[in-house]
Amino acid sequence: MNDNWNNKRLTRQIEFLVEVDKLKSVTRRTFLIDKSRNENVAEHSWHISLMALLMKEHADNLDMDLYRVIRMLLLHDLVEIDAGDTFAYDAEGYLDKEERENAAAQRLFGILPDDQRNEWMALWREFEDGITYESRYAAAIDRLHPVIHNYYTGGESWQKNRIFRSQVMKRMAPIETVSETLWTFTLELLQRAVDKGILLDDTGDEED
Amino acid sequence: MNDNWNNKRLTRQIEFLVEVDKLKSVTRRTFLIDKSRNENVAEHSWHISLMALLMKEHADNLDMDLYRVIRMLLLHDLVEIDAGDTFAYDAEGYLDKEERENAAAQRLFGILPDDQRNEWMALWREFEDGITYESRYAAAIDRLHPVIHNYYTGGESWQKNRIFRSQVMKRMAPIETVSETLWTFTLELLQRAVDKGILLDDTGDEED
Ligand SMILES: [Ca+2]
Repeated sequence: MNDNWNNKRLTRQIEFLVEVDKLKSVTRRTFLIDKSRNENVAEHSWHISLMALLMKEHADNLDMDLYRVIRMLLLHDLVEIDAGDTFAYDAEGYLDKEERENAAAQRLFGILPDDQRNEWMALWREFEDGITYESRYAAAIDRLHPVIHNYYTGGESWQKNRIFRSQVMKRMAPIETVSETLWTFTLELLQRAVDKGILLDDTGDEED
Repeated sequence: MNDNWNNKRLTRQIEFLVEVDKLKSVTRRTFLIDKSRNENVAEHSWHISLMALLMKEHADNLDMDLYRVIRMLLLHDLVEIDAGDTFAYDAEGYLDKEERENAAAQRLFGILPDDQRNEWMALWREFEDGITYESRYAAAIDRLHPVIHNYYTGGESWQKNRIFRSQVMKRMAPIETVSETLWTFTLELLQRAVDKGILLDDTGDEED
């Protein structure tokens, strides 16, 4: 894999490009909408990048830098090549998620020329920190996407993993901070999912 | 699939988002680098979008609008949901490719609200026309990508389809118009592929 090419920086970039092909073999709990198989992380990254473009008019902050949003979405899941996909509702997996993903980011972005490593690391950190509007919009799209897949597959992944509405609601929190329209949509979709019997409703006391 | 949501435009956008999930089931002749399976078009679209970011410094025109490049790359293959992936070296398939893809673009982008349909159609047309620098850079990345996959899989798809260097060279033409560095790289990679015996070399007279 370590050919030397006509340009030192290019040699590292080609090595990186080849390495990240592995993301196509990391699978998620989410199913394709035709239920034929689980989704992989690379195609998920494509779908949410397109979705971020598609939904831009619903962002409360129309001044956001969508180009930065797309860059974050294209690269934020690369760490899953080493760290694997941590299921959204896996409390145990979340305990060491940060540690595993930090190590992965160091290794992967470390393949790049230094200035590029720093730039890509910064984008990844921005997404993880979730402070800027752009990173919260990106996170909102990333989280809403599997909920739509769940709804349109009749709750395939929710049912297999016995997920309750309150658990989904907690994951969806970033949406409320970036888009009134998408937040109303999310609440309505979850209500319809409960009404259809494809998402478990919580009993009186939420399990907060 | 045709639920009505809290916002008319959103209803159409969700329908579009669900529809384009099908791109994950359209396969290409290209193999993943670990040769475990064929690549699908959705994950390919992710990989080339990332690659366009990765290689931006090698563009001869550093003023290009990379955000437009990425948007083109994210959406230009959507037409393959209806039209299928036409193998790069399938002369017959290319006869009616344009017609099939035009019909597909009309149907798919037609799901969107009118102004968005026009915007996305224009980006798709820009890519197809290949006149602007951005569309040629996007095409260069799109074409170089499977060549890299071929090289790093030991010519898996070249060999299965008995491809000659001159055929690859013709496909790579857009690269020469956008990047000296990437063009030198392409020529060198093809030479090494021929030297390794994983790409067929042409006999004396090229079949132009
Ligand atoms: Ca994610």
